Amino acid sequence: MYPVQSLIGFTKSAFIKIGCSNDDAETATHALLSADLRGIDSHGIARLVGYVRLWEAGRVNATPSIKIIHESPSTATVDGDSGLGLVVAPFAMKIAIEKAKVAGTGWVAVQNSNHFGIAAYHAMKALEYDMIGMSMTNASALVAPTFSIERMLGTNPICVAVPSGTEPPFVADLATTTAANGKLEILQRKNLEAPAGWIQDVNGHSTGDAHALKNGGALLPLGSDREHGSHKGYALGAVVDIFSAVLSGANYGPWVPPFPAYVPMPENQPGRGIGHFFGAMRIDAFRPAEDFKKHMDHWIQRFRVARPANDDQPVLIPGDPERWMEKERKENGIPLLPAVVEDLRKLSDKLGLPFIEE
Amino acid sequence: MYPVQSLIGFTKSAFIKIGCSNDDAETATHALLSADLRGIDSHGIARLVGYVRLWEAGRVNATPSIKIIHESPSTATVDGDSGLGLVVAPFAMKIAIEKAKVAGTGWVAVQNSNHFGIAAYHAMKALEYDMIGMSMTNASALVAPTFSIERMLGTNPICVAVPSGTEPPFVADLATTTAANGKLEILQRKNLEAPAGWIQDVNGHSTGDAHALKNGGALLPLGSDREHGSHKGYALGAVVDIFSAVLSGANYGPWVPPFPAYVPMPENQPGRGIGHFFGAMRIDAFRPAEDFKKHMDHWIQRFRVARPANDDQPVLIPGDPERWMEKERKENGIPLLPAVVEDLRKLSDKLGLPFIEE
Repeated sequence: MYPVQSLIGFTKSAFIKIGCSNDDAETATHALLSADLRGIDSHGIARLVGYVRLWEAGRVNATPSIKIIHESPSTATVDGDSGLGLVVAPFAMKIAIEKAKVAGTGWVAVQNSNHFGIAAYHAMKALEYDMIGMSMTNASALVAPTFSIERMLGTNPICVAVPSGTEPPFVADLATTTAANGKLEILQRKNLEAPAGWIQDVNGHSTGDAHALKNGGALLPLGSDREHGSHKGYALGAVVDIFSAVLSGANYGPWVPPFPAYVPMPENQPGRGIGHFFGAMRIDAFRPAEDFKKHMDHWIQRFRVARPANDDQPVLIPGDPERWMEKERKENGIPLLPAVVEDLRKLSDKLGLPFIEE
Repeated sequence: MYPVQSLIGFTKSAFIKIGCSNDDAETATHALLSADLRGIDSHGIARLVGYVRLWEAGRVNATPSIKIIHESPSTATVDGDSGLGLVVAPFAMKIAIEKAKVAGTGWVAVQNSNHFGIAAYHAMKALEYDMIGMSMTNASALVAPTFSIERMLGTNPICVAVPSGTEPPFVADLATTTAANGKLEILQRKNLEAPAGWIQDVNGHSTGDAHALKNGGALLPLGSDREHGSHKGYALGAVVDIFSAVLSGANYGPWVPPFPAYVPMPENQPGRGIGHFFGAMRIDAFRPAEDFKKHMDHWIQRFRVARPANDDQPVLIPGDPERWMEKERKENGIPLLPAVVEDLRKLSDKLGLPFIEE
């Protein structure tokens, strides 16, 4: 188990080593490690090495000049100047919140960015202001639309965070695929079969081979197949792509830049970098915040006691598992897989940093 | 086959007979029949009798005083005064569009309304103004959350309509369940089995019995089961419920009013009527509309040629099937099931209206 503070110290130092300002390194560190705290291990410190490689490859700008390039009272479009998504996204979410303070809601599309970590971290920023927060991002293509064998969309997550009163907030953070890529990585590492409906092989047939993606297969949209609504998962992933990239001027569909720095950039890119989309809605732009919170508590309390199929497994409110994980990991530290520790040790050598203390 | 004009005439006369103004009857008619035109037969004229019954039961107000009860530059909350959702929703969508003209985006939550027909009709209104349109509504509880055997959510649809240039618009309109209720009704009528993963029985087990809903079963959220992401479908349905009702002051969860007038109202309702939520985003609040449309065309054209698994079934763009259906039915008329014709004949007798001409 690694104490959170020691991961924070290491990560921040790494970002400073690649040239980030102290403030940006701090911002990026908190965004990145929120994934480890919330149990989304695939999107946390395990990716730090990948971010550094993107910087080495010249695909990440450590000192970006992030700016608004278009705006209206309730909207803005932001150019991330190839910065870390972990820095660009908090900048954009702050603008959404500032717009909402004045206009009731704020909506920000972002071009020319990179991977922003987990969607929930950004959407949840709105909660402190009694606002509903939303965040989404596109990502490099791994998902085949219904009827297709070509990877056209990323796992394109959507997060909606809703404030409440005495209850913890409602936080729905979901990839628009049947299974998150991180879950597949776990199966790959353990050489286990994937459940039917998660992935298809190169010919478009459902397969249990967790390695099928490496052999020309694809992840399936939420719904798995046409009969079970995969056209809806495809449509949701498409909406994320359009809001994040067609609205902002970023790359979309099969042209989104890959995360691994060794993968060549797609040719004929129609936009700039990766795209995100953020929203903030002031609760009291619709009704008094106290009324809303009272009813949101009522909503949560009622759903919590919905009759369970099995008494051992009560109904969950979106955000419950991640919040429980965060509480536990803040107290007991964060477990890291040996392969991740090894990667980070090499990184500490490369950057000349003292290694993380257990 | 019934010509569209003849369905329009009959429907409008029926709404006038129950006391709607000429304008409201016209508005309601076009909203309702857009479902028949687009092939969503379960939500069109087949429901006219149901709307009239709701009026007879005093649950629908034919002469509502619809008004804004709360607003900010980019938001409004509307009280539908128990009016037809088919009238209240167009009123609210118009406000969203007007707000967007000035503030860049407009967002309207609605309380005290009734069923609004299909979501796409309302969202697509934004297209005429070079805006992205969004619409959602809650509905009476038919869907069990993941791990539950209790019906807690409606089929809670979401529609996102996106303008394009030379290509037809992108229109994603989806219930947040694996299968729409209308598809289940077709199986029930034909006494066919439902595919596994659409419904569960009273004990929470997947069942092929299309009648299971009548016997205490429930529809399943998009994803079908936990392993295939039903917690995501549940979260999406919950977001629709919260935006439509907790934000507006309508009823949510198991308290949403039922569509059949003979079903008693849930007790201890926490709000008023059914809730909706609408959005309009001006494209040029993010980037010049011409740029957006050029890229949206490019997006559509690229997805259309994504490699198909089977050459006979190319990849579709959300909205394709409904648009083809609308074109065909505008030309050739709308087919009505004998049971629907019979219902409408009784309605014409009751209201003293000449029957629809074939």
